[in-house]
Amino acid sequence: MNCEIINIGDELLIGQVVNTNAAWMAAELEKNNVHVAHVVTIADDLDDIKLSLDTACQRAQVVIITGGLGPTKDDITKQALCEYFGAKLVLHQPSFDNVADFFAKRGLPFSDVNRMQGMVPDCCEALLNKVGTAPGMWFERTDRIVVSLPGVPSEMQWLMTTYVLPKLQQRMGHEAILHKTILTCGIGESFLAAKIADWEDALPRNVRLAYLPDAGKVRLRLSAHGDNRNALQQLLDSELHKLLPQISEYIYGYDDDTFASVVGRLLLQRQQTLATAESCTGGTLAHRITEVAGASQYYKGGVVSYSNELKMNLLGVGRETLKTYGAVSEQTACEMALGCRERLQTDFAVATTGIAGPTGGTDEKPLGTVWIAVATPQGVSAQKYVFRTTRAQHQERTANQALFDLWQRLKTLQ
Amino acid sequence: MNCEIINIGDELLIGQVVNTNAAWMAAELEKNNVHVAHVVTIADDLDDIKLSLDTACQRAQVVIITGGLGPTKDDITKQALCEYFGAKLVLHQPSFDNVADFFAKRGLPFSDVNRMQGMVPDCCEALLNKVGTAPGMWFERTDRIVVSLPGVPSEMQWLMTTYVLPKLQQRMGHEAILHKTILTCGIGESFLAAKIADWEDALPRNVRLAYLPDAGKVRLRLSAHGDNRNALQQLLDSELHKLLPQISEYIYGYDDDTFASVVGRLLLQRQQTLATAESCTGGTLAHRITEVAGASQYYKGGVVSYSNELKMNLLGVGRETLKTYGAVSEQTACEMALGCRERLQTDFAVATTGIAGPTGGTDEKPLGTVWIAVATPQGVSAQKYVFRTTRAQHQERTANQALFDLWQRLKTLQ
Repeated sequence: MNCEIINIGDELLIGQVVNTNAAWMAAELEKNNVHVAHVVTIADDLDDIKLSLDTACQRAQVVIITGGLGPTKDDITKQALCEYFGAKLVLHQPSFDNVADFFAKRGLPFSDVNRMQGMVPDCCEALLNKVGTAPGMWFERTDRIVVSLPGVPSEMQWLMTTYVLPKLQQRMGHEAILHKTILTCGIGESFLAAKIADWEDALPRNVRLAYLPDAGKVRLRLSAHGDNRNALQQLLDSELHKLLPQISEYIYGYDDDTFASVVGRLLLQRQQTLATAESCTGGTLAHRITEVAGASQYYKGGVVSYSNELKMNLLGVGRETLKTYGAVSEQTACEMALGCRERLQTDFAVATTGIAGPTGGTDEKPLGTVWIAVATPQGVSAQKYVFRTTRAQHQERTANQALFDLWQRLKTLQ
Repeated sequence: MNCEIINIGDELLIGQVVNTNAAWMAAELEKNNVHVAHVVTIADDLDDIKLSLDTACQRAQVVIITGGLGPTKDDITKQALCEYFGAKLVLHQPSFDNVADFFAKRGLPFSDVNRMQGMVPDCCEALLNKVGTAPGMWFERTDRIVVSLPGVPSEMQWLMTTYVLPKLQQRMGHEAILHKTILTCGIGESFLAAKIADWEDALPRNVRLAYLPDAGKVRLRLSAHGDNRNALQQLLDSELHKLLPQISEYIYGYDDDTFASVVGRLLLQRQQTLATAESCTGGTLAHRITEVAGASQYYKGGVVSYSNELKMNLLGVGRETLKTYGAVSEQTACEMALGCRERLQTDFAVATTGIAGPTGGTDEKPLGTVWIAVATPQGVSAQKYVFRTTRAQHQERTANQALFDLWQRLKTLQ
């Protein structure tokens, strides 16, 4: 089943709001075997709405529209739908009662424009919105389904989950789609592609491979289409079985895993603890770790030792070390990690120290240079990297790399 | 000048990646007086790319495409552009050298697929990509401009800023456009609008005002259009001169300022220093502060005291305090801030402690509760907030609020 999403709203076209609705809807539809081929963002413009609707109905079986259902003058989606379907507005009593109730509960006056929110085109099925005021609308004409939903993310999501996805499921044939995403790090997209070219060329026609590169990582997404879900799962498993040995050293996880979640899972399993000592990443590493719910079970905390003074006072880095080798050096990184592990009393500690920029580079230590050290119960070691990027990306890439280095050490200690 | 954005990428259509490129591009284009009427997201599909390009060229003067320029097999935008323009690929020596240099610097072998990245259609102007490997491409046919850019946000942004926006500006004739954005906090959009209604109504015709609300903040963007840049600047200055006194108490900065940069500038001016003590924000606050280039001049560092043990050992929070009032309390927050200020020897310290979720709330301290304390040379005070959001948003909002609270204290100490 093919679907087109039309997001209506001037705020999307001037970049004021990022279109998160499209991603949420696409992910949910995809999980339900509904394939989104186009996402179109347009203004609150009557002609453009009708034209886009017409184009969408020519190439998709299901068209889902969001936005333009509010009570103000610039919200004209309902009018466009009436004109497109040759319908007129009629009262939908449950929606009307719902809006009236909404205003009564908040002690707000109930105006004519609010009254309008209880009206829907006479050719649609109204979808009662219990988390807001604007009802959803479900239209069918010949073999096309058109759905109109409010643009407020929470309302759109509730209406999708409550009505739209279950109703689409009912309509579906037996086509199934399965995905598996393999997360790799430490190898560039082109090298990865060259390494698995033979395997990729031999993939069955109903299995597609996509490369999704992002800041030093490459995600490989395998998608399989077919009639029989079990057979598809077996097919995917068998292809994975051939692929994985070829790139096992680069794989750190699957699907929604992150470095931080993978590291966290390992530490939790082994009941071990972690601390961080950050200079150039300035909290980014701790931030990534504590984004994972439950991180407090293995992450004790960390020190952001931005100044040399704090590197000495809080982590015990030697004054001589800083003087002789500088803050951005293997020696300082190692002493930071060791001091952190000892003073924060954890099994592992990771330290970062580098030159994130935009200034501060020298010939010997160019901008982007960073040392990452990992202290373990067995000792400490550090690695140098040079990330020639913006300051923000440098912090991000260093934090990623630090988690990857830690993960590699954790693996070898298994 | 009208523009259509085409974002290419299967990952966008299955909701794996949120389309942030479109919002960034639309905002930058809008600032340059280029109006985005359509954003279209499509798959890495040859026919669909050509068809969408054709449709876009029929309704927009400028078409900007992102994505599908990587070295792997699923990246087919270049092929589609060749077919659409009837062009063939030729070597672009600077881009080729750039790619070769990129691999040489990293000590990586240079493969045939990488070589391909130095090739561009013979009818385009190649835009040398100094922050990545895939060059941008600028096509012109009759009165239409088509630009193809990589989908990696940092590379797209660099190419837009370096080439595309300046080149578009040249085409716009002599029309100059100047912007000034005033950043306000602590007043809602409608109250702000009412407060400055007289001034807004009296604005000259060539000056436009836009309200850009976002999470408790409202940005006011003034845009002036005209022939003479100096005259425009004077006009903007004179309008600002009238506006600012009316809303001065709500203004925290201008243009690209953030809470972190504004706080940083104040500290730098006064040659004072800052440290952070974070529990629930887990590094997010330090991360925000160190995102600002030059933060090392006033930010000494911080402690992420995720465990109670570290709150005691690194910050000197009393065992009795934790036992009597709990980790999420006014007392603990204040002791964290005071201990941090004292041990890290700074003028100011900010502390956060709360329940970010998704679990851990109680009746007395519901999920989302957070205490933020600010220690100054004059003493310490704390404030309670309840942010009922996701874990990630809780960390973000708390970090923002902490910086805002600090900024307010800094102002009163002027």
